[in-house]
Amino acid sequence: MLTPVPTSGPVDHALRGRADAVLPGGMYGHLATRVNRLPPVFPQFFRGGKGAVLTDVDGREYVDFMCAWGPMILGYGDTVAERAFARQAAIGDVLNGPGEPMVELAELLVETVAHADWALFAKNGNDATSTACRIARAATGRSKILKAAAAYHGASADFTPVPVGVTAEDRANLILFDYNDLASLEEAAAVGDIAAVIVTPFRHDGFVDQDEADDVFVRGARALCDKIGAVLILDEVRTTLRIDPAGAWERYSIRPDLTCLSKALANGAPLAAVVGIDALKDAAADIYVTGSFWYGAAAHAAGLATVRELVDNDGIGTMTRAGAQYKAGLEAQADAAGVGIVHSGPVTMPFVRFIDDDATFTLAMAFSESALEHGAYIHPWHNGFISTAHTADVIDRALLATSHAFARVAALVNAR
Amino acid sequence: MLTPVPTSGPVDHALRGRADAVLPGGMYGHLATRVNRLPPVFPQFFRGGKGAVLTDVDGREYVDFMCAWGPMILGYGDTVAERAFARQAAIGDVLNGPGEPMVELAELLVETVAHADWALFAKNGNDATSTACRIARAATGRSKILKAAAAYHGASADFTPVPVGVTAEDRANLILFDYNDLASLEEAAAVGDIAAVIVTPFRHDGFVDQDEADDVFVRGARALCDKIGAVLILDEVRTTLRIDPAGAWERYSIRPDLTCLSKALANGAPLAAVVGIDALKDAAADIYVTGSFWYGAAAHAAGLATVRELVDNDGIGTMTRAGAQYKAGLEAQADAAGVGIVHSGPVTMPFVRFIDDDATFTLAMAFSESALEHGAYIHPWHNGFISTAHTADVIDRALLATSHAFARVAALVNAR
Repeated sequence: MLTPVPTSGPVDHALRGRADAVLPGGMYGHLATRVNRLPPVFPQFFRGGKGAVLTDVDGREYVDFMCAWGPMILGYGDTVAERAFARQAAIGDVLNGPGEPMVELAELLVETVAHADWALFAKNGNDATSTACRIARAATGRSKILKAAAAYHGASADFTPVPVGVTAEDRANLILFDYNDLASLEEAAAVGDIAAVIVTPFRHDGFVDQDEADDVFVRGARALCDKIGAVLILDEVRTTLRIDPAGAWERYSIRPDLTCLSKALANGAPLAAVVGIDALKDAAADIYVTGSFWYGAAAHAAGLATVRELVDNDGIGTMTRAGAQYKAGLEAQADAAGVGIVHSGPVTMPFVRFIDDDATFTLAMAFSESALEHGAYIHPWHNGFISTAHTADVIDRALLATSHAFARVAALVNAR
Repeated sequence: MLTPVPTSGPVDHALRGRADAVLPGGMYGHLATRVNRLPPVFPQFFRGGKGAVLTDVDGREYVDFMCAWGPMILGYGDTVAERAFARQAAIGDVLNGPGEPMVELAELLVETVAHADWALFAKNGNDATSTACRIARAATGRSKILKAAAAYHGASADFTPVPVGVTAEDRANLILFDYNDLASLEEAAAVGDIAAVIVTPFRHDGFVDQDEADDVFVRGARALCDKIGAVLILDEVRTTLRIDPAGAWERYSIRPDLTCLSKALANGAPLAAVVGIDALKDAAADIYVTGSFWYGAAAHAAGLATVRELVDNDGIGTMTRAGAQYKAGLEAQADAAGVGIVHSGPVTMPFVRFIDDDATFTLAMAFSESALEHGAYIHPWHNGFISTAHTADVIDRALLATSHAFARVAALVNAR
């Protein structure tokens, strides 16, 4: 007897058919957002959400552990950020120049981010990383950027993980090192002409355990930049507001020269920022970067509301409790099922790997498929995200789904 | 007796002071949006708008001939686009993947743009131009991009007009030609390895008269690309929906392989698109470009509403009538004042230059300053934009302002 393959719903299927006709590959861009890299039950198209619950185009609901790939941090739906956006949009959004909310948001980030003396704003996370590199080059008069080998810093021609349609020259000034390996960083820097080191607060590469930044590495990276006069860029695009609003490396008492922010900065409104130290303010003023919608006030207003809400009401504390509950629940279920897992990364950005998994992530795929069928959206090979809308009840509801998923994995392991 | 210098209002001045403290240069990015390149009466900060009338932070109102530098095309305030955005945002915006509006908008662009077989979406105009180049390189396996010397195609490291913080390698694959000079284009192409020719529908460089594309140049560019197997990219970011929704070169019966759209595509909601021919669909699927907010449904819904409104209700006709009224009024006033002007470009994207002006644009600066004082926002050295909210009454109101401005210019000329 053939077991029917669980698939996404009929509305999703119909939309995929229409999309195949008019969108490259049926879905362009980010590999991880294409369903062909996920079990067939995963929908490609979504309708909406409420709090931590996401609804696909077929009306199926999931407790969402992707949070729109990070942007959603206060919940979907009518949050203080959405209301601030709508209020500002009704007054004025994209005009002939910025409005007061841009200045206010710069002031708030300068107040919030420990090393920040100024801020500038853009739309994509990649705008922030590219702009930070441009500032570093302008300030130092140098060309080369050091980055960790598998680290994601956006999809621009220099940084994209899939360099199709990219020239050798686009990547000629990138030098790679290994994350958390200070010797490899120092060796990479020896070539000279180093404008900047760009680094994420912890290692959050796909497919592998997340890895906290090593104290020696963090201090060594700062010391190296000081010694050679290079700019230390902390790429917090993915970690924005989920580790520490004051800066993800405050726990080490180490401050970067530039920080890149985006994703959760405005709870989903398109917004990115570079914040930096006073010594780089002139360089930041000298470069020419811009976008038609960068000065739109509604996204700035949403950013103001998001940052204030999280800072004033200890969003980190709320998300940390939810993430800890989720982690403890998963680990208890794994133990009970006799399945070995590794939960890695901060609990606000969890990734779960199955110890006995194979190269094609058979167990993770089965787990996420079963979890999805039972109402929890968990990506098999990319870190997840927790929001302040993940209440204890919501986590309990998700853990009901994962209990089924662990049973599925245990059956697979036992059948080997 | 000293004539007091007219300046922007007290709220604007106070905001500039705050901005100096927390924003690089008091205003980062685009040179043209910084008030230090404009007469001191120009405000840096804006509050809102209604129809074609823009309001600065001091509550001063202007008939706006910049339209937020292009994005505003249906008017400021509560238009069908803003309502569609708000409706969709209330359902769902940035989620774990796109919603139905993305597919619908791709279908609508395929139906609307003559050469388009597919579409993909991004946030910045520069995302569209960069992505188009990436597709061309992926499809051809070649590296070099031909662009007109002074043409603006965005602020990415390769294209930015101010290459501060940019490396030689970033620009190593750019080859320049002169707009409307087919011989220079063919000569530039002779170097080989040409992936694409990127070109605007007409020459809209700053400071100089706009120049319609020459028929020989347009046909020659198409023939050259066909001959050498290069991709012809029409950069319609600035002209989006203001020349011909079917394509700005339809008047020549010439079709590009890729078109870049943005600015007015969603009446101010952050949105960009690349549309292309079937032969490039696989290349467009193979490249890896993405952004955290690219799949947000609210901007797609605003794009749907904007395109439908303009196509169904002959937006081009409405804007053309308004632009023609504005042009005729300006020319009559210039004649009456004995001031020589050149109005250039399509009437929906007008630029006015003073024939007897000097290299520092003394007359244009005086004109725009006086027009602003009397309630019309006209940029001195960048093309303007007309919207469907520029009714005959609005144009009449603006022409009252420009009549004062012409008197100011006449006085300057006569005092020489």
